[in-house]
Amino acid sequence: MSLHDTCHEYRFDRDTAVQERAEGEFTATLTDAWRTFTTHPNGGYVLGAALSGLDRQLPHPDPLVVSAFFLRPAAPGGAVVRTEVVRQGRRTATGQVVLEQGGKEVVRAGATYGDLSPDPQARVLSLDRPPQLPDPEQCLVPAEFEAPRELTIASSVQYRYAQRPGWLDGEVGGCPHAEFWMRFADGRPADTRSLVSMVDFAAPAVLEVGEFSTVTVELTVHVRARPVAGWLACRVFTKHVGGGLHEEDMEIWDRSGVLVAQARQLAMLV
Amino acid sequence: MSLHDTCHEYRFDRDTAVQERAEGEFTATLTDAWRTFTTHPNGGYVLGAALSGLDRQLPHPDPLVVSAFFLRPAAPGGAVVRTEVVRQGRRTATGQVVLEQGGKEVVRAGATYGDLSPDPQARVLSLDRPPQLPDPEQCLVPAEFEAPRELTIASSVQYRYAQRPGWLDGEVGGCPHAEFWMRFADGRPADTRSLVSMVDFAAPAVLEVGEFSTVTVELTVHVRARPVAGWLACRVFTKHVGGGLHEEDMEIWDRSGVLVAQARQLAMLV
Repeated sequence: MSLHDTCHEYRFDRDTAVQERAEGEFTATLTDAWRTFTTHPNGGYVLGAALSGLDRQLPHPDPLVVSAFFLRPAAPGGAVVRTEVVRQGRRTATGQVVLEQGGKEVVRAGATYGDLSPDPQARVLSLDRPPQLPDPEQCLVPAEFEAPRELTIASSVQYRYAQRPGWLDGEVGGCPHAEFWMRFADGRPADTRSLVSMVDFAAPAVLEVGEFSTVTVELTVHVRARPVAGWLACRVFTKHVGGGLHEEDMEIWDRSGVLVAQARQLAMLV
Repeated sequence: MSLHDTCHEYRFDRDTAVQERAEGEFTATLTDAWRTFTTHPNGGYVLGAALSGLDRQLPHPDPLVVSAFFLRPAAPGGAVVRTEVVRQGRRTATGQVVLEQGGKEVVRAGATYGDLSPDPQARVLSLDRPPQLPDPEQCLVPAEFEAPRELTIASSVQYRYAQRPGWLDGEVGGCPHAEFWMRFADGRPADTRSLVSMVDFAAPAVLEVGEFSTVTVELTVHVRARPVAGWLACRVFTKHVGGGLHEEDMEIWDRSGVLVAQARQLAMLV
């Protein structure tokens, strides 16, 4: 048993833990604590379990970019995680991981890891600004998120909105753009590893335009910095719906106003 | 010799052609006609050759999303393209492709294909608008692009700008945002396959802020519609530079004002 297999303080780490069963091959157990409005575990959460395997194979500490293809819905229960080291460099390393259930691929992801240790010499340029939200304490929790039954993710993750989202009341004429606060419910600090999952924890922006059934085809996330402690300010939006497809962008900014993750997915209306 | 091996009218098709040498495995010959300001063939072009192999393995006509990790610089000359069919569905199919030179991986890409045949029933929502450019005939060609020696891509692709880009004159205080027209020089119509390559044909937006050396780590492209004939209106921009990394977004809109491709890459300053 390696250090990785010891007990975890936080739910996200417990629920994405893997055990090595062969060189580069791991087992995981997906739980039912990360379900959104669908019947299956959230894709970002499943990707988190897959990356727990890849983390151990690559020497660099931080995922810089992850691209995941979602092939089939996951289900709570056992999974196998197979990793492959594609290229090891000095500054970055690239790997691939497949998470399978019942012998079928659920998610396949490529990832390049590097080191996001703060570098005071590095040039910083930001031409956008974080979501302008009231303090989390001034924001509201939609009642539906308070007593989650189906929506189990709302017991694992806390959300705070400036206004009640219109889609909760069946409004479909809104703008597919939402800003809100997010953090783990049990106080787990966000880090570069959890950000890869958290970019998929938003309610889809297209709910605001009446699209209630959408499945992710592919998700790419850039992790841009290590977040400071505290609530994360999130911005989720869609600009283009057409041909039965839409993109969804998600940005996560930390409490110090730094963009820490930037993600885009292609999703299919079903 | 299959139909695919017959001679091609256009340079892009000739230069990305592959020959099958085993089930799912192909050979390609990269040319020197797609070089930007670096010493090696453009990554989008190399990805195009890789996808020529994957095209033959998947039954759907259009790439919907492609994610490519660029592992090593390519060089003009022979390459091997290895494909894998990951999942075949009714509406989409997903595959993976690796392009190797000298036994080493140059690019590894995943792709989901589907069918972008126009569907008049499909909902269309667009919350952004195409680049506002003068007609291509009123735009200018930078002199550096007229007599390309190093910049061989400028003999394969035509560019038209409303203003002369500042970086050509060593200006480094600009905004990392550019809009311009683009098309193949030999009249090849753009299609969903060539768009996957063309999203990497822009001069990097960060040239305008004095960053002259940047390498792509990963590129994701969403192909959103089949383009109509004619010039393509392009928008390339970067919003965040930090930690030695930056993202670069590229949008391609067709002459009818439809967003046909949307891409983002993570690149490293070197």
